[in-house]
Amino acid sequence: MTTDSRHILTLNAGSSSLKISLWHLGDGDALEERARGQVEGVGDAPHVVLKDPMGAVLLETRWPPGQGPGTHKQALDLILAWKREHLGDLEVAAIGHRVVHGGPHLAAPAVLDDELLARLETYTPLAPLHQPHNISGIKAARQAFPDALEVACFDTAFHRRHPWVNDTYALPRELYREGVRRYGFHGLSYEYVAGELARVAPERLAGRVIVAHLGNGASLCAMENGRSIDCTLGFTALDGLAMGTRCGQLDPGVVLYLIEQKGMNAKGISDLLYKHSGLKGLSGLSHDMRTLEEVGTPEALGAIAYFESRVRREIGAQAAVLGGLDALVFAGGIGENDARLRARVCEGLAFLGVHIDPARNAAGETRVSKDDAPVAVHVIPTNEEAMIAAHTRALMG
Amino acid sequence: MTTDSRHILTLNAGSSSLKISLWHLGDGDALEERARGQVEGVGDAPHVVLKDPMGAVLLETRWPPGQGPGTHKQALDLILAWKREHLGDLEVAAIGHRVVHGGPHLAAPAVLDDELLARLETYTPLAPLHQPHNISGIKAARQAFPDALEVACFDTAFHRRHPWVNDTYALPRELYREGVRRYGFHGLSYEYVAGELARVAPERLAGRVIVAHLGNGASLCAMENGRSIDCTLGFTALDGLAMGTRCGQLDPGVVLYLIEQKGMNAKGISDLLYKHSGLKGLSGLSHDMRTLEEVGTPEALGAIAYFESRVRREIGAQAAVLGGLDALVFAGGIGENDARLRARVCEGLAFLGVHIDPARNAAGETRVSKDDAPVAVHVIPTNEEAMIAAHTRALMG
Repeated sequence: MTTDSRHILTLNAGSSSLKISLWHLGDGDALEERARGQVEGVGDAPHVVLKDPMGAVLLETRWPPGQGPGTHKQALDLILAWKREHLGDLEVAAIGHRVVHGGPHLAAPAVLDDELLARLETYTPLAPLHQPHNISGIKAARQAFPDALEVACFDTAFHRRHPWVNDTYALPRELYREGVRRYGFHGLSYEYVAGELARVAPERLAGRVIVAHLGNGASLCAMENGRSIDCTLGFTALDGLAMGTRCGQLDPGVVLYLIEQKGMNAKGISDLLYKHSGLKGLSGLSHDMRTLEEVGTPEALGAIAYFESRVRREIGAQAAVLGGLDALVFAGGIGENDARLRARVCEGLAFLGVHIDPARNAAGETRVSKDDAPVAVHVIPTNEEAMIAAHTRALMG
Repeated sequence: MTTDSRHILTLNAGSSSLKISLWHLGDGDALEERARGQVEGVGDAPHVVLKDPMGAVLLETRWPPGQGPGTHKQALDLILAWKREHLGDLEVAAIGHRVVHGGPHLAAPAVLDDELLARLETYTPLAPLHQPHNISGIKAARQAFPDALEVACFDTAFHRRHPWVNDTYALPRELYREGVRRYGFHGLSYEYVAGELARVAPERLAGRVIVAHLGNGASLCAMENGRSIDCTLGFTALDGLAMGTRCGQLDPGVVLYLIEQKGMNAKGISDLLYKHSGLKGLSGLSHDMRTLEEVGTPEALGAIAYFESRVRREIGAQAAVLGGLDALVFAGGIGENDARLRARVCEGLAFLGVHIDPARNAAGETRVSKDDAPVAVHVIPTNEEAMIAAHTRALMG
């Protein structure tokens, strides 16, 4: 690694975590990943891991509660200290930030300047649990790299051209105008997967595609000719599929019940719906699909069955939005690795033309459907960091 | 009409209305409708209409605000005074009440005694806007007919055998145990329609059927062999499809936003979601589909398109729940009368095997699909009062 080569750093700042990846800009601006990792437990009991692209650990440290990095800035400084020590003064020419919310109008990544940063701060009411941390990550990076180009990549941008009927709730139009819209999220993941599908099955991407991003967060995206036209996540990260700890689709009357009949306040309800629902709430045990499959108690199996039934149901819903289906893609931690879950989801979808080949599915091949099945079913590992790096490179001009 | 013949009265008490129907029990206990009508604007500017089965007006009166019947009891007395004058002292042997909520366990109509009435009162927290009025109607009828058999027919009962995954939200199980479930509603309508479908197309009822009850309230019911396995309405009457003034499916994060960012309280949010959303909120004009089709402004057409897109989407979702589709049935004020809407909903469903015959659809025939279409599409006028009367008769035994 030469010290004069140009690099792109990606940052994804969560409430108590900072994910980073480092990319070398090679000949013809080809992107080559050099390192990826995260600092977790920022401000609590931090734990940093950094690995090379082969998975070898480059750096790993744990601190007891109250010690180690306590802010995004300190977490970033820690990574940078490692970088200086091991990679020398390589040039970070640009930094790409994952930003959860780009509001109603930002439909593409954008270079970060003071005006855009101020604008992103105005979207905090739309994502109070996430946007402030993203902004804190941006500010930390600006301090650390005053001369680097900074780019904001929005999780909402890929969805910003949805038809109006898929972008609104049935509420008075004033609320839509002020920003209560079905934004959709996981956009960077969907955009990456669409790009990969264009490589492995371009004729399918030109048709009607559903991508299932199934991880600790989970959603489906319906695409027509590679463009998102619908997402099961809506105004916030609570809608649509059940997730690790989030409820997914919920009758708004339940929220009114929790207020009026149980005396809960917004904070308590928010904690319940974001942190104690989903697989964790239904199983009473864990948010983690692997743990639930291992323990196999009736509650754990019930939670898994619920998750699967919601995925199937929403695949049916998006097939109706698309008017049929040409390809179904599984991505995300669960979608990429859980062959049993893929098989069970697809079992009920024969009426759409979905037919899994069990051997291919067990092997996790790129295409897991039978050769003569009308719907191609693919497994495509997602890579949001690569998408951020690519967007950032594109704006380096 | 003889004065010694036995009759069944049905009552459906809403917040400011009382719907009634009167049925003669003929030879072999055949039910014959004698009169049907309603008192609207109870406590405000009341208006009573009573018609015979041919639609001829038997009674119609309007009062200025503040006059006329002010309670359900007074509304019922008004009907009974008319009955005594015109029908003499005919025997009301039994009264069937529509009750919105039968709670988690009541899966069939039941004879009303003090114990059941007390139990129904405990379900008020599950349906605070409806249950108290149903109970007030029951109490009014008990005063007026101390000797008649009274039967409670629940809008939830037909759905009480849903598989658990269609009966729960992804919330901690304690909430399910205390009653936060996907009850589903319009059960009396679905049960009636299932009975009619058994008559006109029994081989279809034995398969996978979706019934679309589309009126001012709207929902879909998925049936397997005549039994409900899923309903788009859930815990309250707010879920699923957009309706005349109700929002339908809504990200729970929107409710948190209205509280935290706009300072609204539960009452204000409840009013917004129940009374000012749906077609009315989107059009800014009217909750009434006919009015919206007549005015044809962009906002009105947008609201209609939204309604249609949600119906299509949820038909796809329920097809996935059923694993395919054998019949689709339209019922309710909109479903029975709006041929254009039926055609537009079905246009996007060819992938399921839905193919409408335009002439049959325009004529509103019982079967509006093409002869060779895999999915039979029917139009079946619903009749909740007939269902209540039939249930009541069955319990007179």
